[in-house]
Amino acid sequence: MKPEPYRLQRASYPLSVIVPTRFRDLDTLGHLNNVALGSFYEEGRAHLNRAAFPKEMRHESGLRMLIADVHIAYLAEAHYPGDIEVAAGVLRIGRSSYVIALALFQNSACVGACETVLVVTDENGAVEIPPAQRAALEGLKLKAKH
Amino acid sequence: MKPEPYRLQRASYPLSVIVPTRFRDLDTLGHLNNVALGSFYEEGRAHLNRAAFPKEMRHESGLRMLIADVHIAYLAEAHYPGDIEVAAGVLRIGRSSYVIALALFQNSACVGACETVLVVTDENGAVEIPPAQRAALEGLKLKAKH
Amino acid sequence: MKPEPYRLQRASYPLSVIVPTRFRDLDTLGHLNNVALGSFYEEGRAHLNRAAFPKEMRHESGLRMLIADVHIAYLAEAHYPGDIEVAAGVLRIGRSSYVIALALFQNSACVGACETVLVVTDENGAVEIPPAQRAALEGLKLKAKH
Amino acid sequence: MKPEPYRLQRASYPLSVIVPTRFRDLDTLGHLNNVALGSFYEEGRAHLNRAAFPKEMRHESGLRMLIADVHIAYLAEAHYPGDIEVAAGVLRIGRSSYVIALALFQNSACVGACETVLVVTDENGAVEIPPAQRAALEGLKLKAKH
Repeated sequence: MKPEPYRLQRASYPLSVIVPTRFRDLDTLGHLNNVALGSFYEEGRAHLNRAAFPKEMRHESGLRMLIADVHIAYLAEAHYPGDIEVAAGVLRIGRSSYVIALALFQNSACVGACETVLVVTDENGAVEIPPAQRAALEGLKLKAKH
Repeated sequence: MKPEPYRLQRASYPLSVIVPTRFRDLDTLGHLNNVALGSFYEEGRAHLNRAAFPKEMRHESGLRMLIADVHIAYLAEAHYPGDIEVAAGVLRIGRSSYVIALALFQNSACVGACETVLVVTDENGAVEIPPAQRAALEGLKLKAKH
Repeated sequence: MKPEPYRLQRASYPLSVIVPTRFRDLDTLGHLNNVALGSFYEEGRAHLNRAAFPKEMRHESGLRMLIADVHIAYLAEAHYPGDIEVAAGVLRIGRSSYVIALALFQNSACVGACETVLVVTDENGAVEIPPAQRAALEGLKLKAKH
Repeated sequence: MKPEPYRLQRASYPLSVIVPTRFRDLDTLGHLNNVALGSFYEEGRAHLNRAAFPKEMRHESGLRMLIADVHIAYLAEAHYPGDIEVAAGVLRIGRSSYVIALALFQNSACVGACETVLVVTDENGAVEIPPAQRAALEGLKLKAKH
């Protein structure tokens, strides 16, 4: 994955959450482990999904957002101790799926970028994204120009 | 990522390793967590790299294989308790990088597939893959037809 | 915790489960991380609880086994790659709680021991351990002499 | 472990660090997993050790602090999302070992307490704690009365 330059800039993303690194994120090479970095992207996705789909809406609708695809670019080594800012925004919205773009920033440098495809499902499988959720996702789109 | 059908078949891969699931791999939805599944692919990569690059070769050469890109397709829910078979093979070999293809099998079903780009580096950055390592990687290629 | 010598012997335990180490269990010091080792003990507990309390019994009774206390002695460094054998047995049984003793073996050496207090609860709190479960736990007691 | 009441009070501890919970800390029961909670205590220990033993001191002396024993009391369920405050202080100091006391606070409630024995070692094994380090540890003692 070669993300376009605007996706490596913090200002392109409507949301972000600060996630301090933990000693347990390190691996034997002394930098943040590739798999552990997945957990930072997960926090960004959860943050965006909580913003777009309030708990009541999810409980009422019985909808679940399942991950279908995760693509991560490792751009620089990330270090402990210290915080990582996980930036998140919506890249594309389809009929029953949407794509979240994420980027990790440490000391102002972009150390990684991720793209995740999520499918909205009920107990029978994929369903069309309801209008209210679609509007919420539209409001969290990435800003390509700024 | 939409992996070609042969990549969802165990027989296409030259290597595999059995990784039992752990309770800690579960998440609150009751199936194996997306990030935790990353750890299974990591075991497959480590297994292939140990086969291709014996410890002595790595120590002598001072080379490191750094992950540049990971792309995962989630194909079915995976469960605990039970084993996952992680199948691994080489998809492509470039000048200084190579691509490992991986797939997870549980109860004979392919529950996920992954593609990882690794770059061979020394302390100054990317280097050409040495001939012996290139030959080892060639010997571990995926079998598209079988 | 200074476990009695018989608790460092594999033969003292009625049950065991093999858990291969994972690269992700390592920390920056190059050996298995203290917190990650907790996951091995968790597998031993889950194994024992599945043996003592079959799924149907748990569903029917609505009982949950909650962890109240975990005490771990780190006896030697543990390494990757390689398997760890997690041995498990019941140390003591109280009115509503019981104690599981565990030990980790790698290459025949005991690398750690653990003692966990679990409390049997329903939705209102601690309850007396039902007779069938008590009998099952009695059958999984550690053997002090052998 | 039944920690004395003062150990469940935030004000007894000289140091603390805020660690946000992560989705990955949850388990299938919907609360923070027992093993994952170990990672919070690890952050508290690392925080205290960085305060007591500056990096230069550790590099110069070649000393390592190895964990010999961890004892955790689980006092209440902890939840996601939300922060956990990990409080840390020194409980006892021996010739070559010291004991760190820790407690976890979420929404002002103490949800867990931990006691960790660490041994100061060089490449030949346990060594006497150097005077400067001993003084630093003395300065980080828990306050039993306040």
